[in-house]
Amino acid sequence: MECKVITIGHDYGSGGRDIGKLLAEMLNYKYYDSEITAQMAKESGLAEPFVKNNSEYASHSNYFLFTLNNWTSGGPSLVDQLYFLQRQIIIDLAQKENCVIVGHCSDYALKNISNCFHIYIQSNINARIDRVINQYHEELDDPVKELKERDNRRKTYYRYYTDRKLNDLGNYDLVIDRTHLSDEDCVEIIYQVLSKLE
Amino acid sequence: MECKVITIGHDYGSGGRDIGKLLAEMLNYKYYDSEITAQMAKESGLAEPFVKNNSEYASHSNYFLFTLNNWTSGGPSLVDQLYFLQRQIIIDLAQKENCVIVGHCSDYALKNISNCFHIYIQSNINARIDRVINQYHEELDDPVKELKERDNRRKTYYRYYTDRKLNDLGNYDLVIDRTHLSDEDCVEIIYQVLSKLE
Repeated sequence: MECKVITIGHDYGSGGRDIGKLLAEMLNYKYYDSEITAQMAKESGLAEPFVKNNSEYASHSNYFLFTLNNWTSGGPSLVDQLYFLQRQIIIDLAQKENCVIVGHCSDYALKNISNCFHIYIQSNINARIDRVINQYHEELDDPVKELKERDNRRKTYYRYYTDRKLNDLGNYDLVIDRTHLSDEDCVEIIYQVLSKLE
Repeated sequence: MECKVITIGHDYGSGGRDIGKLLAEMLNYKYYDSEITAQMAKESGLAEPFVKNNSEYASHSNYFLFTLNNWTSGGPSLVDQLYFLQRQIIIDLAQKENCVIVGHCSDYALKNISNCFHIYIQSNINARIDRVINQYHEELDDPVKELKERDNRRKTYYRYYTDRKLNDLGNYDLVIDRTHLSDEDCVEIIYQVLSKLE
């Protein structure tokens, strides 16, 4: 079975993007992540930083407050509309060409489309902090607190729009904890799994 | 990094046991699953079918009813005591020899022990029903209902004794949906991952 579209969900700082890029190169597939945000900004007329901050991450880590914020808008909120736009862009990309799509609730957007393979990359908190500081060169005052806050905002966003839980293994075909694995190792493992699918 | 103990959690009917046996053979490790139940029966003096039915699976799929049942015993219930016995047997096995342990909340019992690698094997419901009927030769009147009931009893048991969720990907180092993979393919993939761990 040839998988034409690979989605990769990931913990922030686990290197899911780097693994996705390497995998796309190996498979000769297109790679999409920030390109989706750029396309959303272009189609909506909203600034890219605003789009980035209001897709994938909820404005509150608290599910109730995020829900309340969206409800009080009196109709589909701007964040709701961005979600629908994001979803449509992902569906269009998946129908157009073979690709690796990282993040953006892409596993949910493509859950009923055949020939998709859904991956989640995770890593322990210390390895994630190390990557965020030393490879992404971000300054974190309280690394554990800030990463957990980010995780919770992402979980809230995912749960609100998909009614599934981000960390439910049933959403994925393959989950790898890459704490003790290099990017290249992860790509080799994924490639091996893809090549064995009946 | 050499993993001396591999735990395999699994959906019933996903073939986790068969994969575990093959993996143990390949690694030349001991294999433990029903041997744990037998040991529990021997140490407790209870019949093996009773032990089997009261470890891994809660008596109720409903978490509240299972909790209530245990609380009303006025102290550690018989099921609680079986859980403690099971946990101790698993910890002793892990300290004694290299082994593959399937089920029995073994990932939780060994969560703080180094050199352990935790796997979860899942599969889609139709493939599981097919395996249960055609390979385990079980008769199921309403296969979907009966498997879901079993899943829920297992989730309840796991949640009650570990305070974690069975399907939370954070519990595991590797999760494989084996719907489109043979037992041998899964073992090769696991072996590849183990051989790459730094």
